[in-house]
Amino acid sequence: IHPLYAAMGTTVFERMSALSRELGAINLGQGFPEGGGPLPLQQAAVRALQDRSAQYPPSGGLPELREAICAFYAARQGLSLQPDEVIVTSGATEAIASAILALVQPGDEVIVFEPAYDAYAPLVRRVGGVPVFVPLAPPRFAYPLDLLAQAIGPRTRMLIVNDPFNPAGTAATEAELAELARLCVAHDLVVLSDEVWEGVRFDGQPHRSILAMPGMRERGVKVGSAGKLFGMTGWKIGWMVASGAIGQALGRAHQFLTFTSAVPLQWAVAEGLGMDDVLDGQHEGWAMSRARLRQGLEQAGFTVLPNAATWFLCVDLAASGIAMTDAAFSERAVREAGVATIPISALYEENRGPSHLLRLCFTKPDDALDDAVERLARFR
Amino acid sequence: IHPLYAAMGTTVFERMSALSRELGAINLGQGFPEGGGPLPLQQAAVRALQDRSAQYPPSGGLPELREAICAFYAARQGLSLQPDEVIVTSGATEAIASAILALVQPGDEVIVFEPAYDAYAPLVRRVGGVPVFVPLAPPRFAYPLDLLAQAIGPRTRMLIVNDPFNPAGTAATEAELAELARLCVAHDLVVLSDEVWEGVRFDGQPHRSILAMPGMRERGVKVGSAGKLFGMTGWKIGWMVASGAIGQALGRAHQFLTFTSAVPLQWAVAEGLGMDDVLDGQHEGWAMSRARLRQGLEQAGFTVLPNAATWFLCVDLAASGIAMTDAAFSERAVREAGVATIPISALYEENRGPSHLLRLCFTKPDDALDDAVERLARFR
Ligand SMILES: CSCCC(=O)C(=O)O
Ligand SMILES: CSCCC(=O)C(=O)O
Repeated sequence: IHPLYAAMGTTVFERMSALSRELGAINLGQGFPEGGGPLPLQQAAVRALQDRSAQYPPSGGLPELREAICAFYAARQGLSLQPDEVIVTSGATEAIASAILALVQPGDEVIVFEPAYDAYAPLVRRVGGVPVFVPLAPPRFAYPLDLLAQAIGPRTRMLIVNDPFNPAGTAATEAELAELARLCVAHDLVVLSDEVWEGVRFDGQPHRSILAMPGMRERGVKVGSAGKLFGMTGWKIGWMVASGAIGQALGRAHQFLTFTSAVPLQWAVAEGLGMDDVLDGQHEGWAMSRARLRQGLEQAGFTVLPNAATWFLCVDLAASGIAMTDAAFSERAVREAGVATIPISALYEENRGPSHLLRLCFTKPDDALDDAVERLARFR
Repeated sequence: IHPLYAAMGTTVFERMSALSRELGAINLGQGFPEGGGPLPLQQAAVRALQDRSAQYPPSGGLPELREAICAFYAARQGLSLQPDEVIVTSGATEAIASAILALVQPGDEVIVFEPAYDAYAPLVRRVGGVPVFVPLAPPRFAYPLDLLAQAIGPRTRMLIVNDPFNPAGTAATEAELAELARLCVAHDLVVLSDEVWEGVRFDGQPHRSILAMPGMRERGVKVGSAGKLFGMTGWKIGWMVASGAIGQALGRAHQFLTFTSAVPLQWAVAEGLGMDDVLDGQHEGWAMSRARLRQGLEQAGFTVLPNAATWFLCVDLAASGIAMTDAAFSERAVREAGVATIPISALYEENRGPSHLLRLCFTKPDDALDDAVERLARFR
């Protein structure tokens, strides 16, 4: 057994969801809305099951889905892509794994901003790469460009950027993206740009991909997720966008990781990407839930960090007058208050991070949010 | 770009399917039946879309599916498993990738029998392992136990076994399995046992897993595939079975490769595994198609190898009086006869293999099989 996996724990998202199921808690931990997803998408999947082949589509994905993804990015982000620059994956996690397998060689250093999705560093290590962690500091989780410049060395090969940013729910400024891009070009780095939250912004700003910055198209991988766009996290349809030799290498890695992903759901997502009303309707609902959870938490005396995007709000426990660490609070809250959350410290290695921030997922029914706030208010 | 992926071609299955689509050929290349899969499975998926959550199931898979897989193996193979020994994956390919990531360390040697699924060796190499190839010889593709014993050395860590065996459609004897198991125990090897064809046997023998051999449960990974059992290759629901520390490590690898797989289809497969009539009905249909293609080919003067399992028959071009290599014949057949096939030589590295064997997939409608035979007869 590879020592990395022998020593590895269960991802915090799975651990909290399992605990929440076991205890019957309200699950504001792992990020997902409730329910079966938008009805028109369900209906499209039903039609695909009834009318379409259930057999292997091309490894890169259904041509119709690849075209729909291009049309979506052209309309929403002004990105002009060709279908063969898009590879459909079994969720965004597979896209991230494919990119790391295809692009990181033994000894390569990869910049990982912390807090981080807990899949990045283990994947980098498993292929022989070395993650180099650069901390983002609350409350704005801005990119510390001085620290970043110091972290880049002769062995640096890749930068992993997650924008909009989970767990904090912040978004990079255009100046930050431009500077990150400039560093990539100057140091000949590739960027793995995890943009799964691109459709979940509440700051009124259009999402801008780092791939749109000068010089980045040929050195970037952009990762997207239908689960996040449509609030159907169990469908596991994601994609990666990349050009030229990088795109070709990603396709090779993907063909031997999963070959392709569930074809009836690919058909449905292809249809869904053209349904602006569905996308906008979901977004409106999430915006209301976001406001409701913030207001409830604030009225209960919790200090909530500024937030621009994602399905998550962060509570500052220290500023809320709570002396417990986030890990202790989270562990007690799920057991004693019946509310599952994610302690931000779990997304740093070696206890390097702040230990006073708690992430809560707000894409839940009103009564679940109200109930959770009440439970946390009583518990705190 | 990792040099492995920079130099890698498209898998032969995808290449032939793409060529077949482009040319409008009859596709007897990549292994898949036609159509939407069994109606009761489609209906179960429709119900799941309508009635069930579309959100993340546990990373290891729906408990109901894990239990159904255990019940299936208990009934069909007398294997007694616990649900937590089963991890649901995004197709069997992801299971293979997870096992290789979790179990192969840099410098480890992995025995790969050739011809082989073209994903095995690149995955082994990508994680720093060294594939050691051992050839299986036509027509029976028996395990050359003398060569195998020579190939096992102090760095050997894993044996990859595929039984029933694609591309040849043969099956190991119980004596062979027992000897492979004995070698694994004697040399402290783990076995990655790709048994995706376990439900597709035509020799009247029950499938027996190498994991059922003495001493193997704690050192084995058994890989299964709903796509193969039900003839729905585009659903991409597979699984791996492993116990103890190995099972735990596989779960860790899986959580960071895809996390989980399409939940509506997991529900449907859970139902389907209990539908003996569906499984038996499919099998009967495939048996008839198998006989039809064999008969047609033989009547047209082709020599067809003995076959016990899988969706494939192999034609011996040399014995059929055809002087072309399999690669040349396959390439010309798709272009000039309009029939796509797989040259077995593509599943060996460095042209090491025989070059007179052609694989044809028979799980196609009667008229497609008849038409393909006629085209090949005219072309030969
Ligand atoms: C695949 S588990 C991670 C889910 C997620 O995006 C989150 O909760 O942050
Ligand atoms: C994932 S492509 C390989 C499909 C297959 O099992 C075959 O054709 O042999």
